[in-house]
Amino acid sequence: MFKKILIANRGEIALRVIRTCKEMGIKTVAVYSKADADSLHVRFADEAVCIGPAPSSESYLKMTHIIAAAEITNSDAIHPGYGFLSENAKFSKICDENGIKFIGASPEMIDSMGDKASAKATMLAAGVPCIPGSEGILENFEEAKKIAKKIKYPIMMKATAGGGGKGMRVVKSESELQEAWDSARKEAKAAFSNDGMYMEKFIEEPRHIEIQIAGDQYGNYCHMSERDCSIQRRHQKLVEETPSPFMTPELRKAMGEAAIKAAAAANYEGVGTVEFLVDKHRNFYFMEMNTRIQVEHTITEEVINFDLIKEQIKIAAGIKISGKNYEPQMHAIQCRINAEDPYNGFRPSPGAITTYHSPGGHGVRVDTHSYAGYVIPPNYDSMISKLITVAQTREEAIKKMKRALGEYVIEGIKTTIPFHYQLMEDPTFLAGECTTKFMETFVLKDKSSLED
Amino acid sequence: MFKKILIANRGEIALRVIRTCKEMGIKTVAVYSKADADSLHVRFADEAVCIGPAPSSESYLKMTHIIAAAEITNSDAIHPGYGFLSENAKFSKICDENGIKFIGASPEMIDSMGDKASAKATMLAAGVPCIPGSEGILENFEEAKKIAKKIKYPIMMKATAGGGGKGMRVVKSESELQEAWDSARKEAKAAFSNDGMYMEKFIEEPRHIEIQIAGDQYGNYCHMSERDCSIQRRHQKLVEETPSPFMTPELRKAMGEAAIKAAAAANYEGVGTVEFLVDKHRNFYFMEMNTRIQVEHTITEEVINFDLIKEQIKIAAGIKISGKNYEPQMHAIQCRINAEDPYNGFRPSPGAITTYHSPGGHGVRVDTHSYAGYVIPPNYDSMISKLITVAQTREEAIKKMKRALGEYVIEGIKTTIPFHYQLMEDPTFLAGECTTKFMETFVLKDKSSLED
Repeated sequence: MFKKILIANRGEIALRVIRTCKEMGIKTVAVYSKADADSLHVRFADEAVCIGPAPSSESYLKMTHIIAAAEITNSDAIHPGYGFLSENAKFSKICDENGIKFIGASPEMIDSMGDKASAKATMLAAGVPCIPGSEGILENFEEAKKIAKKIKYPIMMKATAGGGGKGMRVVKSESELQEAWDSARKEAKAAFSNDGMYMEKFIEEPRHIEIQIAGDQYGNYCHMSERDCSIQRRHQKLVEETPSPFMTPELRKAMGEAAIKAAAAANYEGVGTVEFLVDKHRNFYFMEMNTRIQVEHTITEEVINFDLIKEQIKIAAGIKISGKNYEPQMHAIQCRINAEDPYNGFRPSPGAITTYHSPGGHGVRVDTHSYAGYVIPPNYDSMISKLITVAQTREEAIKKMKRALGEYVIEGIKTTIPFHYQLMEDPTFLAGECTTKFMETFVLKDKSSLED
Repeated sequence: MFKKILIANRGEIALRVIRTCKEMGIKTVAVYSKADADSLHVRFADEAVCIGPAPSSESYLKMTHIIAAAEITNSDAIHPGYGFLSENAKFSKICDENGIKFIGASPEMIDSMGDKASAKATMLAAGVPCIPGSEGILENFEEAKKIAKKIKYPIMMKATAGGGGKGMRVVKSESELQEAWDSARKEAKAAFSNDGMYMEKFIEEPRHIEIQIAGDQYGNYCHMSERDCSIQRRHQKLVEETPSPFMTPELRKAMGEAAIKAAAAANYEGVGTVEFLVDKHRNFYFMEMNTRIQVEHTITEEVINFDLIKEQIKIAAGIKISGKNYEPQMHAIQCRINAEDPYNGFRPSPGAITTYHSPGGHGVRVDTHSYAGYVIPPNYDSMISKLITVAQTREEAIKKMKRALGEYVIEGIKTTIPFHYQLMEDPTFLAGECTTKFMETFVLKDKSSLED
């Protein structure tokens, strides 16, 4: 087992890794930017090394500084957390070259999963369903018609140069195709001076459901069931839960098997996540594979009573996994508490936390690097805490979350707590019917109505 | 179901009950003494009523004030927590008479279990093993000899007027009996002017192991396995864990059955605890039955994924229990964090908390009414927080506790955190071999060695 692990990250995930290392008897080294000198991860690590000024490019992304910090502290492994260098093939390679174990994927795996086209090709070859569509730009209307027929309506046409919904059309039947083809191309031409179009199957009422997997260096794989992360704002996940309220035992089995196929196809080693889109008919399609720990790993830990960071470290140290799959035993929800003003377009709200009071009690977990007096620097991600509740049923987990949000006091800055509180009363959420489109129509009530 | 519950208590347990009520959609009323105006239970309840000055006798024990508070707030039930009026038959009766449901035992049950002699008689009649011994004062040496033979050596002789170990003798065989009889009586005569002696079986290497039970008004009973509370100082529990490291499946089955017999014999309704002493041969003996929630109920909740306060409330509202027994699925430990100076004879250390930082993360639960700025009044129990860890194995739960204790920052007052930290490294504790005598020989290391 490793003797000392350097954590190439900050905030709650750095603290999360330190906690598991402490419990495993492994020494830890924190690295930090000048802006993070007062951060808890610096305080709780056995050693800490300043690696540069606030901008990530000069510290948390500065590979040479991090490798130097690992060498001077005699660290035998680096845990990259999520974000920053966690899915950087070059960094994984440099660690290897310097004889430091990178607790994450190999450069080859990162590369093959990081490139969307090659990832999709690998998955298709392995029999993992991907969103069907044209291969590249459609040559002409006849080809569009042929492919649409093959992948079945509804389909979506998209401008290859597109963005912001321009040059995009959802087509429900062949009778609508010609009109859509003409108007989308015209729109794309006007907007981007490029009328190249491609086609994909249109996913109706899409849900983002991902499968947590693990693989070891002996070719054993397992999955730990799903997480539903459909509630997103601008592709940022806000709330995650497991089990998914949309899940059925058959779908879990099928998605679990597909995720393991995906992991095996990539010769995956470590813990990882296979992200899928699931449509209203419960068809599922591979989106991407994340070759690192995820922010929402916590809810999986709660429902299967399992430490995923420990598992990561053990796999990196060459320990075999059992290969058995895990079913959720409980229901867990995570709210990402961000230093943002939900009443002002979720604008970041860095600054000093003047009062801090953590919720507690039965079934409540808090993962945070925040405390009273902590000054949230403006330089990084605005997530300042993860609040997780776990209970025997979804209904109880929601009630517990509402109770815990009601207890959570963070003063001095704005946070997304009021948003989450309202969400816990939202009829669509309560019914378990949120799709990835949910936030597009969600309206935050004014403060006075929340305070009732 | 109740619409509004008044909580006739303070501190962490008042907050604990409020949390469950919130999750159940039941309104809450806090009562508080003038010394507790800033307490969190006052802040988190829907309503709060001041019931008198700091001394408990003038507030938390003042039945008329509490009943009046329940009546003016239209509360339909009272939860008494633990301590104070929780096992007061008169208060239970007054609640009844005022048409307010007392969430606890009936006056008859409290009386029958509160009187040690009648409780023992009930248990013996029900076939629950009790510590064998003389019935009252021994008439003469011959009787002492006869009874000792019957209950088998080792036995303990105790002065009926005794205390502080005076007039007490452990006798291992008949050959030692005469000498012990003479010297103990002489000592008792000199110390108390009363040489009356009684006899009990001597419990070798006693462990305090209790069984959590529940019973409903339809005659259904179940048990939720054991808690080991052997680590005590002057009969105050310091650390509790479940499962007991001394437990075997056979012993759990036998103790569980005995506890259910005890509950049935008392026609017990509600959640309760049957406390046993267990000797080194795994013989167990009834000590007493607590007709209320206990401080250490938390660890049972963690290992069976069950809210015991909710269960209490449901039973009081007339809801049926399933009647199935619960086995621990995990291992949980609780450290009682007291505002006491462990380096100064555990002397109470009330005062203002200047800095407060709660531990968090996977498998860590904190039940507390403390926060930064809170002034701990000198009038009450010194327990200010309960830190609970839960993991798949005892070893992991201990490591997690050590990690969490290391993160726990409470400044401005002295706390028992350093004691607990050292305990988590103690060889006897690690081996799971603590008896109720453990603290008699435990020596706290000086601070500098702890800071290593």
